[in-house]
Amino acid sequence: MTTRREALEMIGIATGSVLLGSIVTGCATTKTGNSNGYAVAADGKTPGFPWPYIKLDPVNCAERAYKAFLEGHCMFGSFSGIVGEYAEKMGAPYDSFPFPMMKIGAGGGGDWATLCGSLNGAMLSISLFSRDPKPLVDELFGWYQKEPLPNYHPSAKPRVEITVTSVAKSPLCHVSVSRWCKSAKVKSFSMDRDERCAWMTASVAKKAVELLNAQADGVFMGNYPLPKHVQECRSCHDKEGIYENTRGKMECGTCHFSLGTKHPEI
Amino acid sequence: MTTRREALEMIGIATGSVLLGSIVTGCATTKTGNSNGYAVAADGKTPGFPWPYIKLDPVNCAERAYKAFLEGHCMFGSFSGIVGEYAEKMGAPYDSFPFPMMKIGAGGGGDWATLCGSLNGAMLSISLFSRDPKPLVDELFGWYQKEPLPNYHPSAKPRVEITVTSVAKSPLCHVSVSRWCKSAKVKSFSMDRDERCAWMTASVAKKAVELLNAQADGVFMGNYPLPKHVQECRSCHDKEGIYENTRGKMECGTCHFSLGTKHPEI
Repeated sequence: MTTRREALEMIGIATGSVLLGSIVTGCATTKTGNSNGYAVAADGKTPGFPWPYIKLDPVNCAERAYKAFLEGHCMFGSFSGIVGEYAEKMGAPYDSFPFPMMKIGAGGGGDWATLCGSLNGAMLSISLFSRDPKPLVDELFGWYQKEPLPNYHPSAKPRVEITVTSVAKSPLCHVSVSRWCKSAKVKSFSMDRDERCAWMTASVAKKAVELLNAQADGVFMGNYPLPKHVQECRSCHDKEGIYENTRGKMECGTCHFSLGTKHPEI
Repeated sequence: MTTRREALEMIGIATGSVLLGSIVTGCATTKTGNSNGYAVAADGKTPGFPWPYIKLDPVNCAERAYKAFLEGHCMFGSFSGIVGEYAEKMGAPYDSFPFPMMKIGAGGGGDWATLCGSLNGAMLSISLFSRDPKPLVDELFGWYQKEPLPNYHPSAKPRVEITVTSVAKSPLCHVSVSRWCKSAKVKSFSMDRDERCAWMTASVAKKAVELLNAQADGVFMGNYPLPKHVQECRSCHDKEGIYENTRGKMECGTCHFSLGTKHPEI
């Protein structure tokens, strides 16, 4: 009689089977935590959620993200760049994730131009691997709002050479694309803009993996706190402010061009 | 000697194993299509991507979404409401999806108040089940922008009775929350607002499942085309417009309060 255990080992998915069960319940049967928020399997075989992170190479992920963008655009690109790289290293059952579901995030979600798809995919990747994802997401979004991007040049010959960067001042696709198109003096459905978004996807994937690695090493430090003017707006309008009538961390002035005559001077 | 096939059957995951393989490659070994865009497994065991949709009960999904919100907020709520209901019916390997990864989408993504988390979770659910998800996402987002919401009352006794609805005029958390708080005259981090978002999550999950069911039945019809004034803006500023300097489908006037003096009369 072959035992269940032997049967599992025979098909080489003992680890996977236990993992599937542990993911469903959301907790591992045997695990310990480390100082930077990751699940660590005591026996190396029974990780729970989040998936046990192994440090990835940021450049490899950026390259993979670039190629994935060409197949399924921005959200699929960054998610596949990171989680696809991981799945290739880890094999089953991690590679069974239904990656194509992320394709809908293109163009800021079904082309609605809301949250930049590369950020959406990277945010979910971070969430899949970290027990403490929010500081990393804050850092990633803060970096995206403030840095001249894209800042990653793919190794393959690009469809168009991108020479212009812009500061998005927002995590929203609509604003990010518009500002770059204005800087580059190109149209929003041009090949230039599409290639820029492919480079953005690679840039975001690389940054997200750098953040995951820093957290895994216990050396993560945030360099992109909310700007002072956003903190000032939030001090009245966000949690515990005198008005407390909204929520958010996006740049305020990007949409609120004018505060109107009733608003006090700031 | 136990064969690989017998070993698989012994642990009851033969179907699952084949499925996992087919998800990885993104195509089923044996499948046929139907008229409304769904993958249908010829033998009922080898579905590919998208996951083979079975019609779900919108009210059951709304109830599940409401409960899931209380556990993990909006994006986790709508995604678990829909895909969790499906996973419970379908079992392995569908129930191995790492649902907790969606928790990061709360508050419009890490509390950044970008894309409403309930929309993000519903969008990905639709993408997981439909070969033609974009018309459904367009309809869902268009409905969310235009309808007085929330419109679903959970069967369980709510933490607060929500009596006020508002029209979001945007798929963005920041705008949606602010507008509701103004209508309800409550603070943005109050229990009222949190309960409203739980009802919103249930409302969105219900609507998304109604759309999936309509597509599965071949009777999907869009009732929320882009408003005329958005189409007018897009005719100059979006794809193939004379400026073609941006992209998006969101309500324009919600952020662009004033067009400035240089813009022609519209």
